Amino acid sequence: MAKQNIYDNEIFFDGYRKLRDKEGNANELFEMPALFSLLPSLENKKILDLGCGCGGHCMEFVRMGAERVVGVDISQKMLEIARKENAHERISYLNMAMEDISAIDERFDLAVSSLALHYVEDFEGVVKNIHSLLNEGGVFVFSQENPIVTCHSGGSRWTKDENGNKIHMNLANYGIEGERDTVWFVDNVKKYHRMFSTVVNTLTENGFVIEKMIEPLPTEELLAKYPDHRDLFHKPDFMLIRARKI
Amino acid sequence: MAKQNIYDNEIFFDGYRKLRDKEGNANELFEMPALFSLLPSLENKKILDLGCGCGGHCMEFVRMGAERVVGVDISQKMLEIARKENAHERISYLNMAMEDISAIDERFDLAVSSLALHYVEDFEGVVKNIHSLLNEGGVFVFSQENPIVTCHSGGSRWTKDENGNKIHMNLANYGIEGERDTVWFVDNVKKYHRMFSTVVNTLTENGFVIEKMIEPLPTEELLAKYPDHRDLFHKPDFMLIRARKI
Repeated sequence: MAKQNIYDNEIFFDGYRKLRDKEGNANELFEMPALFSLLPSLENKKILDLGCGCGGHCMEFVRMGAERVVGVDISQKMLEIARKENAHERISYLNMAMEDISAIDERFDLAVSSLALHYVEDFEGVVKNIHSLLNEGGVFVFSQENPIVTCHSGGSRWTKDENGNKIHMNLANYGIEGERDTVWFVDNVKKYHRMFSTVVNTLTENGFVIEKMIEPLPTEELLAKYPDHRDLFHKPDFMLIRARKI
Repeated sequence: MAKQNIYDNEIFFDGYRKLRDKEGNANELFEMPALFSLLPSLENKKILDLGCGCGGHCMEFVRMGAERVVGVDISQKMLEIARKENAHERISYLNMAMEDISAIDERFDLAVSSLALHYVEDFEGVVKNIHSLLNEGGVFVFSQENPIVTCHSGGSRWTKDENGNKIHMNLANYGIEGERDTVWFVDNVKKYHRMFSTVVNTLTENGFVIEKMIEPLPTEELLAKYPDHRDLFHKPDFMLIRARKI
């Protein structure tokens, strides 16, 4: 199956960095706090970060007490920055696709993946690889776009009233899984839609027990500061899972 | 919390029976096969059927080898029919709310609930009760309306083109859980919306491991006979889970 490397595209990369640097972006407000809330204690743990990007999470894991962190990313460009901005003796960065991690000759207590798995076609293959790289009782925490978001397959995502307020999301093709071509800074960014049931079953059928799922929503306090995020009550952007190897 | 008994309303009951008797209805084509596919062997098993209605499933469980079946329903009217049409020495019918089953002084190998739990406000209370009534390793299989269906809170569910074809579902308020007033034969049928994450976490936080989730979709063969059901690819009507007591 195809392995996708959009982050080495210059235009995409610039757009991505600007988005992530913007104050009040959805990642910073919703995805990151939820992801970190799902982590077990990292004290003296060996951690695998899949789709580590510029290494920000890897560095944070070291600050939180991790003994060793291996960051994997398909993008050479992202890892160049990681090695410059987030270098540490306890961190190794590996330039490879998530689909190829079975080549790693180490075992881990925790595998983490932040907003990368919806770019992967062979989710089951990656889950199997992660299972084989985890120690017994090891934990797998990941975030991805919510399935009611990944199903989107063109056209307008929202129906708005005459004042531009979002009335409802236009939900179509939730039951049709697979590739979606989307435009995100550049044309033809490929995402892969999987229903909730497929994500759940891929984990339970490959040696994981699901411990917790989060679909992050804003608090009233947060909405007072960022009212635009009220649309998350129509559709949460993200879905996160903590699963344990059995 | 409120316990709801709509089935003892005459108008509702007549509408319901006609719907269920209609050939090619969604229950018969999608929900029932999925529910039965999730059942373990019933040979010599003790089974609890929550929201058993007219007892059709209870009778089927006996045919499949069950040693004993206890059917529970809040509707006196449904149970009258059950006792007439689906009586068997291995079946007992109990007229009580699902919220009250902790009063049952028996233990079961399997708890089943077909399309009843979205009428229950206190899902966690029911899950806890089921856990306490199951033997170690016991199985809980249930179906409910899909969360992308239960979230609906008024207005038109679909956006259609000029020929009346469904273009997309109007998804709103998925992130706002709780009571929904719907019209289904009669006004003010109350359903309770819970996000996927809430359903999953209520199980995993109360002593269950999720083994499988199904969101039933039609096969091409079935669509050839019932083309109207193609809209299930936009939104599956149902969601089913098999969980095991740990």
